[in-house]
Amino acid sequence: MAKHRVAIVGATGYAGMELVRYLLDHPGFELAAITSSSKKGHALAELCPSLLGKTDLTFTDPPELDTLVAAGGLDAVFLAVPPTASMPLVPSLLHSAVVIDLSADFRLKDPDVYQKWYLEEHCVPSLLAEAVYGQPELKRTQLYAAAQRHNEVQAPVLVACAGCYPTASALAIAPSLAAGVAQEQQVLVINAISGVSGAGKKVTESSLFCELNESLNAYGVATHRHTPEIEQVLSEEAGYSVRVQFTPHLAPLTRGLVSTATISLKPGQNAALLYEIYQTAYADEPFVQLLPLGQMPKSASVRGSNQAQVGIAFDERTNMLVASCAIDNLGKGAASQAIQCANIIFGYPETAGLTVLPPVV
Amino acid sequence: MAKHRVAIVGATGYAGMELVRYLLDHPGFELAAITSSSKKGHALAELCPSLLGKTDLTFTDPPELDTLVAAGGLDAVFLAVPPTASMPLVPSLLHSAVVIDLSADFRLKDPDVYQKWYLEEHCVPSLLAEAVYGQPELKRTQLYAAAQRHNEVQAPVLVACAGCYPTASALAIAPSLAAGVAQEQQVLVINAISGVSGAGKKVTESSLFCELNESLNAYGVATHRHTPEIEQVLSEEAGYSVRVQFTPHLAPLTRGLVSTATISLKPGQNAALLYEIYQTAYADEPFVQLLPLGQMPKSASVRGSNQAQVGIAFDERTNMLVASCAIDNLGKGAASQAIQCANIIFGYPETAGLTVLPPVV
Amino acid sequence: MAKHRVAIVGATGYAGMELVRYLLDHPGFELAAITSSSKKGHALAELCPSLLGKTDLTFTDPPELDTLVAAGGLDAVFLAVPPTASMPLVPSLLHSAVVIDLSADFRLKDPDVYQKWYLEEHCVPSLLAEAVYGQPELKRTQLYAAAQRHNEVQAPVLVACAGCYPTASALAIAPSLAAGVAQEQQVLVINAISGVSGAGKKVTESSLFCELNESLNAYGVATHRHTPEIEQVLSEEAGYSVRVQFTPHLAPLTRGLVSTATISLKPGQNAALLYEIYQTAYADEPFVQLLPLGQMPKSASVRGSNQAQVGIAFDERTNMLVASCAIDNLGKGAASQAIQCANIIFGYPETAGLTVLPPVV
Amino acid sequence: MAKHRVAIVGATGYAGMELVRYLLDHPGFELAAITSSSKKGHALAELCPSLLGKTDLTFTDPPELDTLVAAGGLDAVFLAVPPTASMPLVPSLLHSAVVIDLSADFRLKDPDVYQKWYLEEHCVPSLLAEAVYGQPELKRTQLYAAAQRHNEVQAPVLVACAGCYPTASALAIAPSLAAGVAQEQQVLVINAISGVSGAGKKVTESSLFCELNESLNAYGVATHRHTPEIEQVLSEEAGYSVRVQFTPHLAPLTRGLVSTATISLKPGQNAALLYEIYQTAYADEPFVQLLPLGQMPKSASVRGSNQAQVGIAFDERTNMLVASCAIDNLGKGAASQAIQCANIIFGYPETAGLTVLPPVV
Repeated sequence: MAKHRVAIVGATGYAGMELVRYLLDHPGFELAAITSSSKKGHALAELCPSLLGKTDLTFTDPPELDTLVAAGGLDAVFLAVPPTASMPLVPSLLHSAVVIDLSADFRLKDPDVYQKWYLEEHCVPSLLAEAVYGQPELKRTQLYAAAQRHNEVQAPVLVACAGCYPTASALAIAPSLAAGVAQEQQVLVINAISGVSGAGKKVTESSLFCELNESLNAYGVATHRHTPEIEQVLSEEAGYSVRVQFTPHLAPLTRGLVSTATISLKPGQNAALLYEIYQTAYADEPFVQLLPLGQMPKSASVRGSNQAQVGIAFDERTNMLVASCAIDNLGKGAASQAIQCANIIFGYPETAGLTVLPPVV
Repeated sequence: MAKHRVAIVGATGYAGMELVRYLLDHPGFELAAITSSSKKGHALAELCPSLLGKTDLTFTDPPELDTLVAAGGLDAVFLAVPPTASMPLVPSLLHSAVVIDLSADFRLKDPDVYQKWYLEEHCVPSLLAEAVYGQPELKRTQLYAAAQRHNEVQAPVLVACAGCYPTASALAIAPSLAAGVAQEQQVLVINAISGVSGAGKKVTESSLFCELNESLNAYGVATHRHTPEIEQVLSEEAGYSVRVQFTPHLAPLTRGLVSTATISLKPGQNAALLYEIYQTAYADEPFVQLLPLGQMPKSASVRGSNQAQVGIAFDERTNMLVASCAIDNLGKGAASQAIQCANIIFGYPETAGLTVLPPVV
Repeated sequence: MAKHRVAIVGATGYAGMELVRYLLDHPGFELAAITSSSKKGHALAELCPSLLGKTDLTFTDPPELDTLVAAGGLDAVFLAVPPTASMPLVPSLLHSAVVIDLSADFRLKDPDVYQKWYLEEHCVPSLLAEAVYGQPELKRTQLYAAAQRHNEVQAPVLVACAGCYPTASALAIAPSLAAGVAQEQQVLVINAISGVSGAGKKVTESSLFCELNESLNAYGVATHRHTPEIEQVLSEEAGYSVRVQFTPHLAPLTRGLVSTATISLKPGQNAALLYEIYQTAYADEPFVQLLPLGQMPKSASVRGSNQAQVGIAFDERTNMLVASCAIDNLGKGAASQAIQCANIIFGYPETAGLTVLPPVV
Repeated sequence: MAKHRVAIVGATGYAGMELVRYLLDHPGFELAAITSSSKKGHALAELCPSLLGKTDLTFTDPPELDTLVAAGGLDAVFLAVPPTASMPLVPSLLHSAVVIDLSADFRLKDPDVYQKWYLEEHCVPSLLAEAVYGQPELKRTQLYAAAQRHNEVQAPVLVACAGCYPTASALAIAPSLAAGVAQEQQVLVINAISGVSGAGKKVTESSLFCELNESLNAYGVATHRHTPEIEQVLSEEAGYSVRVQFTPHLAPLTRGLVSTATISLKPGQNAALLYEIYQTAYADEPFVQLLPLGQMPKSASVRGSNQAQVGIAFDERTNMLVASCAIDNLGKGAASQAIQCANIIFGYPETAGLTVLPPVV
């Protein structure tokens, strides 16, 4: 069977490069093109010595990609570009290719919310309803439905891949909301810690090794753009409007993200009951492992993979549930989750090309 | 003026070694003895090459210390020993020397609470009331009163130095409680992240470089022993019983601790008002700096020093205050805060021996 | 085709765990058993949460392995044990299974040299001649010959996998010796730097995070046991007795090893000629990439893989060649190189199960 | 006694900031001005939150410094600027102030060598002979002589502070050359490893956290600009022309530098004799500690200080001496060594303001 031909726009960033790594080894996808205006004509392996001898791909100019797409030469395009850069590209691509968007541009359903947090008017608000939120554990039905429509009537498909913090936060919290054990009036408190690659490859003073090494800090307090995305996805799980206080932190590691949520429970809960809720939720998920009760996940256990690990503890003193989820921000938080979505759309097993095991250290 | 002669019990650990570093350079204290049963007779510089050529101290056997103390040869003893190891040592030391205890044994006022969290019956509960909690910013009055009693009537002094997480958490939260702006019924959510040295120098598999490097995780959820200490100190500040949900995390750095609290506010707050509360609280504190509104502290900014930095943000959406405090867990969270307490007891300026500036990187 | 059944002795260490990771994904090998006396009966995934849901393997007692091997139930055994622990195990295993030994016990051909450096008499010196040195780029002929004898007449096979420093050092230096451009009388100077996992999972104070993080040091100067191994393999390449001054260093990273050699050249060399020698040597090697002239490899470019990258520079001022090789000490320096050897012995392509790409960061 | 007033040009870089830290605590110097064209008018503490509350200094425009100097308002100016940026500033400053230059511009005595390695013609070659090389352990006589001339006849003083690699390399090697035990014809092989801050605060992709973390590499092979500086200082010690093959490496830590040299010895050496040579050389040095024979220094043992530690081993097999020196590249390799030089020039004890002890971790 011929492979599906795909391209990456923005392959020079960390999420883009991680997409390259997964796609070069994928049984169903062929990485046919990568684009970059600044690196046009340069070999990928020149930019990324770890790929030396593994690929002959060179960067093409973005306009050439349009030509290629228009000619029907691509089955899918992955967009690994910064927020607000994705919106203008999508409409034309969508005519001829499945679009798997790793940016934040099509995640929020309400264009006003988008504008409030991203400080720019959404240029194709009509597409927001059409976009499928790309977190398979929570939106599997919608993703398979989109795949079916695509397969049967060539319906366009736009997957808005979930953000890194929303992915980990939702995996930590969603089962408790879906099961109705959480108090409805609370503001859920979510604190998260991310490795540095989560900020991308921006060349700024604050991203220098010496500025980040051996340091910790909270950032984006009350203003981080993943806040409304987390509220949206959790509200959909809960069936009512969920509010969160989300505080991200930065720690000195390259990859790894832990999101820890504190959830006030309705009266009458106990640890065994709560554990069963989570067990049931993740029993059949190939990419989510629930740790033994009270044990919390280490981000190193999922490094370089599409895995997520979840740990929960019940605090009888406070009647609160503490749930923590660890992912690789470039994996389940970006590139490999995008592949998982693409697998669904193109009819591959969700695990296709995603079986790499995290190294023990 | 003759210096006050002091000793350290447990100088082989990280907090003990940091005490050594501060005491060797202190204008008022002379480090007269260090004890260790396992290292008896060995030179300190042999164990710690960074002190080569800086000191001739050798480890003495703990029994010799008792003799020295009994003979009136020491003005103060710093105890840098693990929890439950300090209790049995204090009563006899207290007859002849000021005791500055860095362990957790005399921090909690209620022996039942101690037993519940430390899983051992307190062996000298009568001393709990007598101990002064060693966090100068919050207990300055009590510390100076103890100093005066010691000076005037040779009253024994036992300082129970605050723990690392409680220090940072209290500095982040206390002003809002003292000012009465926080809702009283809430469970305060505190998430903290610590560098690895906070766990001490225990030689265990989980403390190996490869097990911790490039990883993040929550731990001790609902069970961490600093929980009742945080509740005690915050309750004293608030004037009512404060409950907290405290979740610590581990990150791959040696030193540095950030504690971030999320506090539901009474109606009618605003950012300027809240900022003024914190400004007033810390205006005259030599060791606490409040950052500009909305800016959060980096642990590297206080590395190797007794400084604490605090940042706050007000989230209008949720009417919550997010307050974050960064300290060096071995500095303000352990050794240098112990020196600050000792300075008060012996009549030195609080800043004596503590003026070292954190390196820029 | 049925897979070959293999076992790992010593799967609890870092090299052993990395073997597990490669073997669980290998197209030709089935990991049938792992042994550990201390972890007997425990699930592998319990010890190693990154394997949760990926394997049901539990540790068996080493004696049970002997029974299994004796019954012909295993095709190969990988020994991932410390030096001197491998020797006594090999003779009995060798009757019924191919032995791939990752320890140092069968690398040196001369039992006196072994005894001098490993401080123990070799207990099966007769096997030293029989063992094939497991570095495919240098000993491909010998490895394929052993495979053929095994295939045709069931000859026993003992592969003594190359050490991490010898692997990187030989890949950096061998082409210049084989080409005869190096001066014969010199002592070759090799300086190397390794990540911490190279020292294994020993639980010692010197392996604690805080002891290693943010520090650098040379160690084992003039005494490191890889010295005679490097001299042996380089002498075989050169055709004369090569002497080296080998100085390893430790740096604060988990995985990664760089070995840099300084080689005095015979008169009349130039950069183009030298580069051609290296290009020719590695042109067809799937796991060795030569960087452009003057560019030196980063260990991150080979992290988590079987790749080695080599860079060379010619210094006209001194008529010296500087050659640097980067490997993953647990990959090409241990586990994946062992798999590469096993692939040869069992007739798989050398790259089978070893195609994982290093992550870009 | 009034303090000497000093200024820093280039205080925004890492070496400049470290100078600030030492000068704010110095008993004899008052930091009167810091300059930066880009940060003009900004508070130092704004740029560097670790100084919040510690200083009111704001950056002045460089031209204002000239006015200040011309008016006799400064006793010394520290230049912490990149190579080639220092040359044009020195002549005018030198009329009215002692110049302590941390750049490389006045280290090399031969303007042709400067031009060859720094790719720019030296604009004030006449000053090269006048500059005193700023490494007190090797050039103490010259520094004190310059101090005396300055004191007696107001002779201008230009100190060209030694580079980081040359400082560590010379401290490792010089005693063996001065004692005449090294073979004269050899090319000395020096391999060094530096933390990232050695490259300064340049905002480039290659300096990003994710590009450097968990990686090792050699760089600048055969081309590093410290090569001729090392050869110059070693030749002066040896009394004959010394050639070196210098290969620096980068490792993932902020501060710390280890330089390891391999030296072929004349016949008839032994370990005790060599150790005595080094002991004698460093017996009275306050900032250099010799470790026990065979023990190699850790860079963490000197972190944040002006200390250097040296370890040596003799390899009987090869008749070679391996000597390794650890320094803090921003301390003894830059800022604190500059202070040590300034102490000499202004008649302070060499240790004034430099007594800070390295933290144990």
